[in-house]
Amino acid sequence: MNLGILGGGQLARMLAMAAHPLNIKCLFLDPAADACAAPMGNLLQAAYDDPASLEHLSNECDRITFEFENVPARALEILEQSVAVAPAAVALRSANDRVVEKNLFHQLGIETAPFAQIDSEQDLLQAAEKIGVPGILKSRHSGYDGKGQAVIRDIQGVEQAWKSIGEVSAIYEGFVPFESEASIIAVRSSKGEIRFYPLVENTHNNGILTLSIPSEDHPLQALAESMVSKLSNELNYVGVIALELFKVGDKLLANEYSPRVHNSGHWTIEGALTSQFENHVRAVCDLPLGDTSAFGPSAMINIVGKLPDIDAILKVPGAHLHLYDKRARTGRKIGHITICCKDRVELKQRIEQVSNLINID
Amino acid sequence: MNLGILGGGQLARMLAMAAHPLNIKCLFLDPAADACAAPMGNLLQAAYDDPASLEHLSNECDRITFEFENVPARALEILEQSVAVAPAAVALRSANDRVVEKNLFHQLGIETAPFAQIDSEQDLLQAAEKIGVPGILKSRHSGYDGKGQAVIRDIQGVEQAWKSIGEVSAIYEGFVPFESEASIIAVRSSKGEIRFYPLVENTHNNGILTLSIPSEDHPLQALAESMVSKLSNELNYVGVIALELFKVGDKLLANEYSPRVHNSGHWTIEGALTSQFENHVRAVCDLPLGDTSAFGPSAMINIVGKLPDIDAILKVPGAHLHLYDKRARTGRKIGHITICCKDRVELKQRIEQVSNLINID
Repeated sequence: MNLGILGGGQLARMLAMAAHPLNIKCLFLDPAADACAAPMGNLLQAAYDDPASLEHLSNECDRITFEFENVPARALEILEQSVAVAPAAVALRSANDRVVEKNLFHQLGIETAPFAQIDSEQDLLQAAEKIGVPGILKSRHSGYDGKGQAVIRDIQGVEQAWKSIGEVSAIYEGFVPFESEASIIAVRSSKGEIRFYPLVENTHNNGILTLSIPSEDHPLQALAESMVSKLSNELNYVGVIALELFKVGDKLLANEYSPRVHNSGHWTIEGALTSQFENHVRAVCDLPLGDTSAFGPSAMINIVGKLPDIDAILKVPGAHLHLYDKRARTGRKIGHITICCKDRVELKQRIEQVSNLINID
Repeated sequence: MNLGILGGGQLARMLAMAAHPLNIKCLFLDPAADACAAPMGNLLQAAYDDPASLEHLSNECDRITFEFENVPARALEILEQSVAVAPAAVALRSANDRVVEKNLFHQLGIETAPFAQIDSEQDLLQAAEKIGVPGILKSRHSGYDGKGQAVIRDIQGVEQAWKSIGEVSAIYEGFVPFESEASIIAVRSSKGEIRFYPLVENTHNNGILTLSIPSEDHPLQALAESMVSKLSNELNYVGVIALELFKVGDKLLANEYSPRVHNSGHWTIEGALTSQFENHVRAVCDLPLGDTSAFGPSAMINIVGKLPDIDAILKVPGAHLHLYDKRARTGRKIGHITICCKDRVELKQRIEQVSNLINID
């Protein structure tokens, strides 16, 4: 079977690694000549919406998926006319429009922070007054790893915030006094079967994920599962989906969802019986879903900006290094480390040990 | 870093899969155009001793290794003159000569079945009389998955056995009334550090491995470790080495060793903290060795001859499918399945479940 993947970054790279043992070959479409997934399959170097390349993909591939939201939904819609695409373009469209996304949550009874659609400075002023400050203004479209966002601490900051995001259509969200950030990753088959990974607690630094720790018997697991179920059933979703959450007391508020494999699920490569990558491939290729249970305590630490001392990392017992073959650059994710341990006490020590070896810049 | 691998079969394929996350790229030398490792790196299609290809490997690669014994030691010796090769050619030479191999065991105090070197029918007759029958005649060189061997059940069978192996230089070994077959896999660094995987109990069918089950706190673990230590220290070995053993009461007899990653270690991909493939790459590339502990109970079942019902396999909880992208053919290993479980009762059930789904031909 041939699987076409729009995007050739590290997520496509890890999808392809999971696909090979199932005898599924990957063909990547990416405008970058140095797309880091390329060594894992064949790279079609072209714009995501290049008609000839889309036709080539459609001819060569039995299934199409995408690795991240920065591919145009229009390309998926074109492909959908001739080949099986999962997740569907509609799931990408909703995820790429913060207003549509939040309205969808609202409509499904999935709790969120208070929000308002913003199309002018006047809208923003009214929203800031109604919802209150502090709050955060986010451009309606795009936005990745904390870009295109502005915090509003008082009403006087409205004008500057509006300008800073480029006076584009946006959403204003009231600040949530959350205790922690979490995510739930699920995989849904074309028959509607859903399986869930354990709720993951996430730590960010400057808007970039740095640490993910899957929980064990989390009291809010069932709530998180019901939230992501509503969403993926509504979208008739096929593949892996990640829902980012804020934990506030015994409540979970939905922040945003990603229609793809997710950084907070990288621990599943070693830490779960079936990785998110393999389960995405299985779902997209109409194969039975795999067991999402965790093996035991584990954690994932991102390598951002620069390469750590490789020897030192490899010496840490139970540490698994994943480098993405990407050039180091400030703020760029170039790899991650999964730590697998026998118990949580040891896990805590290992996280500290590995974190000390990584200099985030 | 670039790693050259002589051989482009499934072992090279899995070595490359382990190498990529360490940003190590693989270049395979294999005469077969359809070498199944090819999608994981670059394939140099040529004879193993093709001078131009060896020069190319030497120029392009920082390190060289090999995936199996059917590569000529001479090719390694040529490469050793200009690039770091591990394991060394000498380890391959000894493994490829059953007489040298058994003499090496004997010299190191590693117990074996009684054996004698055979260069004529007369030698064989004398050996069969001295060591006794039944016994097994094995050609001195080559021999893979039970080929080039003849069982001698009584003295009258000597002539036929000698003819059946082609009247070539050979070894005669007395039959050992073993209770089970086992293997110990170790990895040794260039600094002489050795780590051991748990002793594995193996089941063969027509000379082909079908099932491997790593043990837990096996009473003979220490003995097996001392045997493989003696051997790998003597050879100043670098990389993963597998020693095949017969269990007879509280003794272990060495059968043969493989200077490479081994089929009975495939369970380590999911079942151990660091797989044999990653540890081989680490050792060969002078990186620190990884933790060889098992996660928990696991087993490996080979897929031989024909493809099973993929959907049925993938539905088994905790089953990991590894297909090698090889055309099915009687007696050919085309994949394996690792089963990971919480306890040994469940493991036994799953092994039965998966075995029933696989038809060995």
